[in-house]
Amino acid sequence: MESQENPPAHPAALCIFPARYERHNFSTMTHHEFRAHAHQLADWMADYFENIADYPVKPDVKPGDIKAQLPAGPPLQGEAFEAMMADFQNIILPGMTHWQHPQFFAYFPTGLSGPSVLAEMLTAAMGAQCMIWYTSPAAEELEDRVMEWLREMLGLPSDWVGVIQDTASTATLAALIIAREKATAWAVNKEGLYTAPRLRVYASAQVHSSILKDVRIAGFGEDNLVFIPTDDNYAMIPEALEQAIRNDLAQGFRPACAVAAMGTTSSTAIDPLRPIGEICRRHGVFLHVDAAYAGAALLLPEMRWMSEGMELADSFVFNPHKWMFTNFDCSAFYVRDKAALLRSFEILPEYLKTPEDRLVNNYRDWGIPLGRRFRALKLWFVIRSYGVKGLQAKIREHIRIGQWLAQAVDEAPDFERMAPVPLNLVCFRYCPEGHYSDEALNRINESLLQRLNASGRILLTQTKLNGRYVIRLVAGQTDANLEAVQRGWEMIQEVARGEEGRADAFNPHD
Amino acid sequence: MESQENPPAHPAALCIFPARYERHNFSTMTHHEFRAHAHQLADWMADYFENIADYPVKPDVKPGDIKAQLPAGPPLQGEAFEAMMADFQNIILPGMTHWQHPQFFAYFPTGLSGPSVLAEMLTAAMGAQCMIWYTSPAAEELEDRVMEWLREMLGLPSDWVGVIQDTASTATLAALIIAREKATAWAVNKEGLYTAPRLRVYASAQVHSSILKDVRIAGFGEDNLVFIPTDDNYAMIPEALEQAIRNDLAQGFRPACAVAAMGTTSSTAIDPLRPIGEICRRHGVFLHVDAAYAGAALLLPEMRWMSEGMELADSFVFNPHKWMFTNFDCSAFYVRDKAALLRSFEILPEYLKTPEDRLVNNYRDWGIPLGRRFRALKLWFVIRSYGVKGLQAKIREHIRIGQWLAQAVDEAPDFERMAPVPLNLVCFRYCPEGHYSDEALNRINESLLQRLNASGRILLTQTKLNGRYVIRLVAGQTDANLEAVQRGWEMIQEVARGEEGRADAFNPHD
Repeated sequence: MESQENPPAHPAALCIFPARYERHNFSTMTHHEFRAHAHQLADWMADYFENIADYPVKPDVKPGDIKAQLPAGPPLQGEAFEAMMADFQNIILPGMTHWQHPQFFAYFPTGLSGPSVLAEMLTAAMGAQCMIWYTSPAAEELEDRVMEWLREMLGLPSDWVGVIQDTASTATLAALIIAREKATAWAVNKEGLYTAPRLRVYASAQVHSSILKDVRIAGFGEDNLVFIPTDDNYAMIPEALEQAIRNDLAQGFRPACAVAAMGTTSSTAIDPLRPIGEICRRHGVFLHVDAAYAGAALLLPEMRWMSEGMELADSFVFNPHKWMFTNFDCSAFYVRDKAALLRSFEILPEYLKTPEDRLVNNYRDWGIPLGRRFRALKLWFVIRSYGVKGLQAKIREHIRIGQWLAQAVDEAPDFERMAPVPLNLVCFRYCPEGHYSDEALNRINESLLQRLNASGRILLTQTKLNGRYVIRLVAGQTDANLEAVQRGWEMIQEVARGEEGRADAFNPHD
Repeated sequence: MESQENPPAHPAALCIFPARYERHNFSTMTHHEFRAHAHQLADWMADYFENIADYPVKPDVKPGDIKAQLPAGPPLQGEAFEAMMADFQNIILPGMTHWQHPQFFAYFPTGLSGPSVLAEMLTAAMGAQCMIWYTSPAAEELEDRVMEWLREMLGLPSDWVGVIQDTASTATLAALIIAREKATAWAVNKEGLYTAPRLRVYASAQVHSSILKDVRIAGFGEDNLVFIPTDDNYAMIPEALEQAIRNDLAQGFRPACAVAAMGTTSSTAIDPLRPIGEICRRHGVFLHVDAAYAGAALLLPEMRWMSEGMELADSFVFNPHKWMFTNFDCSAFYVRDKAALLRSFEILPEYLKTPEDRLVNNYRDWGIPLGRRFRALKLWFVIRSYGVKGLQAKIREHIRIGQWLAQAVDEAPDFERMAPVPLNLVCFRYCPEGHYSDEALNRINESLLQRLNASGRILLTQTKLNGRYVIRLVAGQTDANLEAVQRGWEMIQEVARGEEGRADAFNPHD
């Protein structure tokens, strides 16, 4: 019966259908066709992995080149899958930077692996939305279990709880929100920052740019992000943190959060956790550890010096999608205080209530977005395929390669290593004979990097350390191997020295 | 040469490697093995789609059932792929809620399609991180182009720009940040909310819970989210918005943002955009339109009455991953003022600078996270596979099914339709003969829903409208069809009437 209280739908909606509505074939691709195409793509994927070294790492395209090849408007009628695949091959693929290329040494990698890609196939087919237990119980419980595994594998405190986020930026934003709320007894969530004391956030001057962005998003204001000086290793100086906190307290500010970097983006500098943690504890400051890349090294007992003092921290983020062979996106976020996390993010509208709410983890309340992909599956596949020992062997090998390159740079008379190499990121610059100013060297190295990357045979990126332009080489891509790094290092030297007048390095037959 | 300024790496890092380091076989899965497994999974995916109607929509599991079957610790040695797949089949799959099941009528769907899943395979294999143009030029330019297509397809203003986000929660958070910054001339990003005037956000009382969560995250405080009363259609009353803004101005608050719902989660109520937009313009209030689900209906010219006045809005979000057959996650976010978006989110650390920065879109600066998957590919595949007309035909059919069910409910003497049905979400409750209080009806319908869902043959969810418990049925899953909805409606009636004493409906042979 039609409710008295509820008027009918908008008239425009109710009369748009003719009495006799013709039945279409609504499926754009039959199951039979899908099966055939999926097999084609299975081969495409395997071929891609087999041949990836033959692609240019970075495409030789200019802004607008790709877009110009794509029609200005959408097709009215559906097209055959073959037409799309042809365009993918001819237009898209030649315009991609190949992150899985063995000569990809740029940024930090987003390394994947066969088992991870296979898990992504299952995830894509099921298309489950894993916002709460009820909407995918197995996904929730697998995530729970796998995050316990990973906690143990990394040697994190056993009473911490973990959840998968998309990226470290988002996880760090979540940490900042928890810190903000704890510092104000959840008053900001309720009243906003208007009546709060001025909350301060501390991070080393080398910290990732996402911290600044997150500080803005969470409403702290970038003026309240205090950059702490670093030592010669580019690691935070704990005494400087202590001093900054004291200064702020003297001015009536409230120190709320510190972010310690375990592996900065510029040079994988490792902030000393124990002294930082002790200072934070003393002042009631929430300590978040950003180990987005370097966290993978905690798989190695011999690298646990990096996490010495971790039990003093409040939260921790590490991206298996960077250096643990798991498809992007997969960011592991751990917190000490589950209740504080939930209190900061929990919201329970009627349409999301389920009978099991009190018995389960509803990960919707463990971070920013409501909707969530089934990300635990790929992490499970990766850990089980490699086993802990297999993962350790790979990470050890990558660090060994990094150490090899560090030594090679040290031994080259015309190159300068620019930062310590605790892992597998080597920062260096070319310093040809003669007396060049830092400014001149900056120009020389910027030009060197551009020529190297333009070759399509290698991809490196830059940073600045103490105002000096520095080239970064990261040997953490899944297939990173000593031979590839040796080839890369040879090429770097040849191109550098060729530029400086030794043209024979370019063409030895001249 | 070793730099004078830089001390060597942490000694612990430099001495962990024995002089002769044994070379492992670091690959956990050969390309040959990967190819074979990818073909197995191609068949698995196709089988899953063929057989999905045979699975229970929701699994019969209790909290902890799945986790108890998963080992407490990770394996030390790697395992064979077959072992993982067996566990996936025997433990994980039986614990999943099947979002692609034709009897899945719960929440809003996350409908996918063959072409979309195929695109996800390519995306997974390439594993590109699409944060900036340089790291994947084709991904950036395809996203640019496809978002232009979608803008045209939905009839959005032609000068708006679009970007893909993960979810509507995140996109709406971005909108709130832009509104916050515009209202304060970017002072909050710099100084925090401490010195800002008290900023106010307006949304209908029916708005999605993510708005409240986003208001908290952005530091406004939930006390500054003003809920505007709705009319009998559950749509915002523009006059009440005007009044709320005037009240706030009189108190010295600054009205910053209004969120209009195009299709609320409870009942797909459509807020009237034009009067809301005129009020917002008059008072300089940023207007964000949340069309997360219903945006797909804008593909139909006959449904454009919903977006009448859209040119007065400042931003708009619609999730192709809900009702446009594109894998989760894929949320389309459009803004009028690209410069304001960029100014709110832009950050350019040295290690992300590229030669092309001034010529390209670097989507890292268009939202919250830095890292981004290549999501444009699946959207491109979906639009091209269906064509605009194919998408329109499907959406029309789904709306027709919704209208059919609305009429069926209206014609049933013992059911009550609880809200208008502008699209394909029908809100109803069972009202057996006799005089029951609303409270009694709430209990009856809650029990009815639980029994229906426990059957594993159908999945529905609930909401509350004016304090009354309401069952929601959404016919927008990719394979939603009239027959499935008819079967579902029959089952709903049988189970409801069986409960009320007519046991013969359960077992006609008694």
